[in-house]
Amino acid sequence: MSLYDSLKFNADGLIPAIIQEQATGRVLMMAWMNRASLEKTIETGKTHFWSRSRQKFWMKGETSGHTQTVKDVAFDCDGDTLLIQVEQIGAACHEGYKSCFFRSVRGGEVKTTEPQLKAPGDIYGRS
Amino acid sequence: MSLYDSLKFNADGLIPAIIQEQATGRVLMMAWMNRASLEKTIETGKTHFWSRSRQKFWMKGETSGHTQTVKDVAFDCDGDTLLIQVEQIGAACHEGYKSCFFRSVRGGEVKTTEPQLKAPGDIYGRS
Repeated sequence: MSLYDSLKFNADGLIPAIIQEQATGRVLMMAWMNRASLEKTIETGKTHFWSRSRQKFWMKGETSGHTQTVKDVAFDCDGDTLLIQVEQIGAACHEGYKSCFFRSVRGGEVKTTEPQLKAPGDIYGRS
Repeated sequence: MSLYDSLKFNADGLIPAIIQEQATGRVLMMAWMNRASLEKTIETGKTHFWSRSRQKFWMKGETSGHTQTVKDVAFDCDGDTLLIQVEQIGAACHEGYKSCFFRSVRGGEVKTTEPQLKAPGDIYGRS
């Protein structure tokens, strides 16, 4: 069975992709792919997503330089979620953190759990 | 800001929750929570989900005994995805694998990448 026969895209033609840093196991982000962005991800070895808010195809890091090189593409038993292992350049999060999951609930309060590597203005430019 | 002020549930009142085994970093599964299942997860320390197909609230492991004890609840920069660290008893996957992500694409083909711990019939009973 091929990959695409095994996958179920949702009613909007999308599938969620969990992105994990292979070297550390850190879960970096979750974003949505359509079939074209998954094909492009596999073909180029760099993650590509579909932005639901902007209705636009994008390569992770195309503006920031913080690209993700694909090391493995896995999918779950239901075929409705992807798990992609990557090598991450710089910060995965647009807020300048290594991971988008930089906040946790601790003792009923929201706490920041990792250092900010860069200010967002330094990632995308201030102009 | 409280956790619930920081989160965005989708139009169906749901948010995806990535479940990661804290000790190994293995991503075990992704499932959906509504606010009530997240509250129950935090209150009891055991993961609870909302089944979209069955339209039913469920505790992971209620039939199989393969429960997940919550160690940390994180959420992403957009507040639209949860990342929950757990201690997993037995197999997270209903197909008997430790992780639901037991298949990867290797050289254009789908390969099983981890051993099956139990046959599904041995998890849920054969009667």
